[in-house]
Amino acid sequence: MPGTNYDFTIKTLGRCTVNSPLSFSTTQGDYVANYASDERGIIYNIQLPRGDINLDIKKHQLVEKAGPRQEIYFDPAKVNAAVVTCGGLCPGLNAVIRSITHTLFYSYGVKRLTGIQYGYRGFLPEFGLPTVNLTPETVDDIHTKGGTILGSSRGHGDRAREIVDAVERMNINMLFIIGGDGTQKGSLDISREAEKRNLNISVVGIPKTIDNDLSFIERSFGFETAVSKAIDAVAAAHIEAKDACMGVGLVKLMGRESGFIAAHTALASQDVNFVLVPEVPFSLKGEKGFLATLEKRMKYKDHAVIVAAEGAGQDLLEAEKSKDASGNRRLADIGIYLKENIEEHFSSKNWDINLKFIDPSYIIRSAPPNPNDTIYCSRLGDNAVHGAMAGRTEFLISMIYNTYVHIPIPLATSKRNYIDPDGPLWRDVLSATGQPRLMQG
Amino acid sequence: MPGTNYDFTIKTLGRCTVNSPLSFSTTQGDYVANYASDERGIIYNIQLPRGDINLDIKKHQLVEKAGPRQEIYFDPAKVNAAVVTCGGLCPGLNAVIRSITHTLFYSYGVKRLTGIQYGYRGFLPEFGLPTVNLTPETVDDIHTKGGTILGSSRGHGDRAREIVDAVERMNINMLFIIGGDGTQKGSLDISREAEKRNLNISVVGIPKTIDNDLSFIERSFGFETAVSKAIDAVAAAHIEAKDACMGVGLVKLMGRESGFIAAHTALASQDVNFVLVPEVPFSLKGEKGFLATLEKRMKYKDHAVIVAAEGAGQDLLEAEKSKDASGNRRLADIGIYLKENIEEHFSSKNWDINLKFIDPSYIIRSAPPNPNDTIYCSRLGDNAVHGAMAGRTEFLISMIYNTYVHIPIPLATSKRNYIDPDGPLWRDVLSATGQPRLMQG
Amino acid sequence: MPGTNYDFTIKTLGRCTVNSPLSFSTTQGDYVANYASDERGIIYNIQLPRGDINLDIKKHQLVEKAGPRQEIYFDPAKVNAAVVTCGGLCPGLNAVIRSITHTLFYSYGVKRLTGIQYGYRGFLPEFGLPTVNLTPETVDDIHTKGGTILGSSRGHGDRAREIVDAVERMNINMLFIIGGDGTQKGSLDISREAEKRNLNISVVGIPKTIDNDLSFIERSFGFETAVSKAIDAVAAAHIEAKDACMGVGLVKLMGRESGFIAAHTALASQDVNFVLVPEVPFSLKGEKGFLATLEKRMKYKDHAVIVAAEGAGQDLLEAEKSKDASGNRRLADIGIYLKENIEEHFSSKNWDINLKFIDPSYIIRSAPPNPNDTIYCSRLGDNAVHGAMAGRTEFLISMIYNTYVHIPIPLATSKRNYIDPDGPLWRDVLSATGQPRLMQG
Amino acid sequence: MPGTNYDFTIKTLGRCTVNSPLSFSTTQGDYVANYASDERGIIYNIQLPRGDINLDIKKHQLVEKAGPRQEIYFDPAKVNAAVVTCGGLCPGLNAVIRSITHTLFYSYGVKRLTGIQYGYRGFLPEFGLPTVNLTPETVDDIHTKGGTILGSSRGHGDRAREIVDAVERMNINMLFIIGGDGTQKGSLDISREAEKRNLNISVVGIPKTIDNDLSFIERSFGFETAVSKAIDAVAAAHIEAKDACMGVGLVKLMGRESGFIAAHTALASQDVNFVLVPEVPFSLKGEKGFLATLEKRMKYKDHAVIVAAEGAGQDLLEAEKSKDASGNRRLADIGIYLKENIEEHFSSKNWDINLKFIDPSYIIRSAPPNPNDTIYCSRLGDNAVHGAMAGRTEFLISMIYNTYVHIPIPLATSKRNYIDPDGPLWRDVLSATGQPRLMQG
Repeated sequence: MPGTNYDFTIKTLGRCTVNSPLSFSTTQGDYVANYASDERGIIYNIQLPRGDINLDIKKHQLVEKAGPRQEIYFDPAKVNAAVVTCGGLCPGLNAVIRSITHTLFYSYGVKRLTGIQYGYRGFLPEFGLPTVNLTPETVDDIHTKGGTILGSSRGHGDRAREIVDAVERMNINMLFIIGGDGTQKGSLDISREAEKRNLNISVVGIPKTIDNDLSFIERSFGFETAVSKAIDAVAAAHIEAKDACMGVGLVKLMGRESGFIAAHTALASQDVNFVLVPEVPFSLKGEKGFLATLEKRMKYKDHAVIVAAEGAGQDLLEAEKSKDASGNRRLADIGIYLKENIEEHFSSKNWDINLKFIDPSYIIRSAPPNPNDTIYCSRLGDNAVHGAMAGRTEFLISMIYNTYVHIPIPLATSKRNYIDPDGPLWRDVLSATGQPRLMQG
Repeated sequence: MPGTNYDFTIKTLGRCTVNSPLSFSTTQGDYVANYASDERGIIYNIQLPRGDINLDIKKHQLVEKAGPRQEIYFDPAKVNAAVVTCGGLCPGLNAVIRSITHTLFYSYGVKRLTGIQYGYRGFLPEFGLPTVNLTPETVDDIHTKGGTILGSSRGHGDRAREIVDAVERMNINMLFIIGGDGTQKGSLDISREAEKRNLNISVVGIPKTIDNDLSFIERSFGFETAVSKAIDAVAAAHIEAKDACMGVGLVKLMGRESGFIAAHTALASQDVNFVLVPEVPFSLKGEKGFLATLEKRMKYKDHAVIVAAEGAGQDLLEAEKSKDASGNRRLADIGIYLKENIEEHFSSKNWDINLKFIDPSYIIRSAPPNPNDTIYCSRLGDNAVHGAMAGRTEFLISMIYNTYVHIPIPLATSKRNYIDPDGPLWRDVLSATGQPRLMQG
Repeated sequence: MPGTNYDFTIKTLGRCTVNSPLSFSTTQGDYVANYASDERGIIYNIQLPRGDINLDIKKHQLVEKAGPRQEIYFDPAKVNAAVVTCGGLCPGLNAVIRSITHTLFYSYGVKRLTGIQYGYRGFLPEFGLPTVNLTPETVDDIHTKGGTILGSSRGHGDRAREIVDAVERMNINMLFIIGGDGTQKGSLDISREAEKRNLNISVVGIPKTIDNDLSFIERSFGFETAVSKAIDAVAAAHIEAKDACMGVGLVKLMGRESGFIAAHTALASQDVNFVLVPEVPFSLKGEKGFLATLEKRMKYKDHAVIVAAEGAGQDLLEAEKSKDASGNRRLADIGIYLKENIEEHFSSKNWDINLKFIDPSYIIRSAPPNPNDTIYCSRLGDNAVHGAMAGRTEFLISMIYNTYVHIPIPLATSKRNYIDPDGPLWRDVLSATGQPRLMQG
Repeated sequence: MPGTNYDFTIKTLGRCTVNSPLSFSTTQGDYVANYASDERGIIYNIQLPRGDINLDIKKHQLVEKAGPRQEIYFDPAKVNAAVVTCGGLCPGLNAVIRSITHTLFYSYGVKRLTGIQYGYRGFLPEFGLPTVNLTPETVDDIHTKGGTILGSSRGHGDRAREIVDAVERMNINMLFIIGGDGTQKGSLDISREAEKRNLNISVVGIPKTIDNDLSFIERSFGFETAVSKAIDAVAAAHIEAKDACMGVGLVKLMGRESGFIAAHTALASQDVNFVLVPEVPFSLKGEKGFLATLEKRMKYKDHAVIVAAEGAGQDLLEAEKSKDASGNRRLADIGIYLKENIEEHFSSKNWDINLKFIDPSYIIRSAPPNPNDTIYCSRLGDNAVHGAMAGRTEFLISMIYNTYVHIPIPLATSKRNYIDPDGPLWRDVLSATGQPRLMQG
């Protein structure tokens, strides 16, 4: 059965011998919320064969629940924590930073939290970037704002040794790393390097990917907000398409590896006729290809709306590139590629179409989180701290099946999350758009 | 183990012998989405004891997945469907109506869909309410609007016989009933009455409750939207409290039985100091009671924000009522009850506080759905139709663990959904607000 | 002719002999913006008899333009400014505070600006309220937030002598007072008291009234934002009315003296059937009264939406009060008064109507300013500073005919702004609602 | 004195001899709104020399007020009206269409209103575009939506004769033309052609320009909405700039001839460091040029935000074009031109900057109108109808000094509206941004 070979065992720094300063209860029914217990875990593969079956489940196959433990590993007075945000912006970064700060200060009484600036760069001496102190005052109402007060940058995740050098210099024993797939591969290296040096450092990843392309997490924070901003662009494209003679609205959305934003935006908008995603290849030419199908749509309704994830049709772009050595740069963009091919196609048939291309880009990723993402970020941050205080390390804080859980970083970075072209999400997208298989022969 | 005694068996009208007109695939890897299969079901109780365990699972314990079947029960040409919306308004009603209409017309080619007006009243001759025809044109862009184009009203769910009389008169063989707990108890009676008469009618419930107080559904549609509107009221209360001398902001939110809206709003806003919900009793008086704790907060920070679900503290109101025979009506409202008691408390101590009471009420429930709710409503409606076409009946369309499923109506109406005072949601609310147990020794 | 008897002469502290530190130009056509000039003023009465006419205009009849002067009165190094916000909250207060701060610091190089807390109370020793230093850092991004970082309160404008005592103690020579009619009457007393004591203090009023009920100002800041928030409540009322059987939506909006918010909200929403404002009396009973007219509307369309300014129908409430000695408090609210009378009216005719009453209250006044109000607040604040630096005093900063101007406080506080029942605004409201004259016999 | 040579005389079709079916009053003080009177007009030049002056004003120098007349020209039963929307999309088009429809139907009882599709094309036989009937039902809630239900297109305003042919064929005697400068030049030709043929057709222009670049109108409808949408893009640019190492945010906004959107967006956002508009030339190179000034800013604060109107710096682009014959197309865009020059500049100095370019384009112009624009569009449409019913022709409906007025089309199309580089708007922009004169030597 799928999922049985995953090992969800979480690494710990040692035994939990400190009493938690939190005032939760261990009694049911006393109207005081309880500490998280380790007695139960979450089954990962919830789809079982129908019929009377017998299931053997090993301990390592169950996912550990997140939450505050009654006994913790770290003495709060001795915690020296740090937080860093890496990679591109994503709605909710500040809300995560704030909740880590609040939980450390208000729940556990920790007093030392350092903000590392501009991603992994902030650890590297060559950049000379100062650190900042984070306190409840400095993070006051940042959860309502886009961006990250720490700044962010890409790369440098491969310099684990130098990063751990800096971590040692600063005496940090709890490290929160907010970032995507590449960043968390760096987290893993950092965690292993720290282990090699026998440093008792809790390394906690908070998974961040606006594209929702990380596995073992139900949805990534900021994703819902991104979809709600993307809808504005699609609404504009729809109006421009409908209100012009033979109008075509074309919107490029984020999604290098996975087309979740494009798919969800199409479902939410209900005005999209074609969704192009990296997971489902398509042909441009040919009688069942994209251009011919678009032409049919235009004949039927006089306008059309197309949403393309930026990673869609990369095979077509590659082919084009090899043909046209001089024009590579221009062709690297699926939006411009489609725009030009659509215009050429209709122009060659003497149709006077009116194509409007919208690339909302940075407007989406710098948005403040919507309320649901704010809740989510806040609870991710809280639970990340709870896990670290309980001595867990080398784990991602995550939510599956509406339950906050710990996922081992090696497992989380072992595969990406894609739209399953055979699954219900893509099925519902096809129903919503009415688009057929856009493939020649 | 909890959950093992649930019977998730779904009733069917008969064998599926008609080929679906949809063009999905049954082949993996052909880049065409697949029909839903009945080979696997969803395990409902996902929390298992950690350790190597052996699990016996019976077929009836697995939840049936929703989705289009390759073989269906109804010949689309013979379907005569109806849809009705019952109870209070909720964001997303129109989006559900629209997706039922679209899926019936565009996916299955069904041509007859009747809208019943103003809830169950629309079936009852005494009200003389005409029906309306629903087509893709009449539901064009209704998904972006609050309310319901069919109108709604409460009650009359106990008149199943007369309703089935009307259903028979209209030759309806597929009935979509959008409504909450009371409404779905009516659905069950209707389904059973139809069965008694040997009528082959598929009765499908679409669970609606802005309070999120229905069981066996991960979250109810419109709930997220409600929270995002409630936040505006809390933000106003916070500003009024902070910017006045000794300001207290008090917001009453929906939630007769369950305090989910209040709890989530507090988590999203991060500015709330006290959350009062029906699930957690509290004392007003006494040195650890609400008033004394509020006083402490005011001494510490000069302002406070309180969110009360409308069902909170009903025991206190009852007690008060018995004392004060003439003033019942005034006291039935927890918002006004708290307002008056807080003002009396501080006035008796000669504190000049500045209390602002906000009751956003109908502004919340008539809002248009946010993008995530629009997607959800659209997929609920689609899958409700798929289930009905496949001959399922007496079921609710639902989502659990991010998967669309069928839930038997008798099971769904057997218990409500409450905040577990021992569980992680309430724990995270307590962390976010810092409020202690408000109970007098 | 109307307006000819107004005296727009602005008081000054003395001759302007200091060169402005700003780098504007006095040359036309050099692509550098010019200093404001005193060569021209604004004619206040712009409606003239059509025909060839001859107009005698005296200097005092022209309104002085606001803006930076090339020569100023105050040496920036010696300015010691203060700002205070009085009365109820209004969208844009923070934006005004921020722009006063920015213009003083960045444009003029002033370094001392004191924030007085909680309105006029902040001057009075008995309240023991500390002052705060305002700098560009402390006002960083406050313009995007509702409320006022200084806090506010009502009253105490009649204690000019004590206030000027405090002003003298603090050596303040420039005082910005943000507030409404009552507050500005206080400003006038303060200015006169300061003059009596031969203090060279510039007293500048920034007119604030969410109700738009101040004269000599085109619109008050925050008014547009208030209307856009009020529309949400009306939209909710409309949906509740339409989607219930015989639904009536009733919304109470701000407007004690003037019904501008109600009138503009009706124009913007286009869904309102009745607008009740203080300026236009109406009868409840009688065959042309409000109740009978509402009944006609309900017969015609089955639902209705009513918007009432809080000051509407006060004569009816007074009459009612004298009849019912015990129930005064309940009846002081026009919303509840209408709700009860409407319900009684239809109940007495055995109509089963469904009335939903919405009172958005504080949600409106604590909203952050919309972009147009942000611009407006920013320019009001800038120009208030320019006027003060140029030695003007006892003036309100205002905008008329899209031009920023100075208005003498005695003139500004001499009359209120009302909807003219004979004028074009009320005419367009009647057209939009279709409501007749609601007056008996 | 400026403005004295304008002739505001409005053309009329003949004497008004029909009693208006509206039920307004002519009595002051009866609490019924009054008909518009022709006794007074509006003085256009409101800025007068300060001092005791004597003014000679001729009748033609006063602007005619809009509004319903007690006596009208057209018999409503014989009106056959048409409406057309031309040029690019703009927020509020549908609100104007709706209010024209409502006022014709509900106020005057006119029953025939034809919608011409896709701009002037809809009149020209070669395009074969059908017309649509407009009724209160077809325009139901369109005022809340972006775009235009009639569709729009550019051009063909120079084919007045063919257009009047079509108008004659359709027996239209009242023509509402919504469009910008080019469109209204077409209106003028149409009006004159109709006059030449002795057709009694009222030709009414409703001025539309998202750029606010039309004269004799205080602000164009949709402009405020455009600014509020543009702010989202600037907010994103600001976050991207601040949260990256050495970040530069660059936003291109609409404004071919006039930079009003850019200027107002900078004032509303308060985060912009450089505003480039067509009205104020700038140098790129040189020690006081744009690039050197930007460099200084980056040294001072590490990030910068730039807003460029699309028409800014066209002289620089021209110069570049002549140098680089092959690359014209790429260089026609000021956004890309600035992006490339900024990147080259810093790259040549080995600065690693992080430039993010945002072009919100169509997202802005297809937005639904904000409440204030909805009110404005509604009142423009109402008053356009009142003017036409009263037999006025060849006029634009406009608002100046908060008063709705009639402007002769020949006058309105005689000059454009620009930001005055010497005036208070540009002055306040310079104060808000702190930008110096960006000009070399």
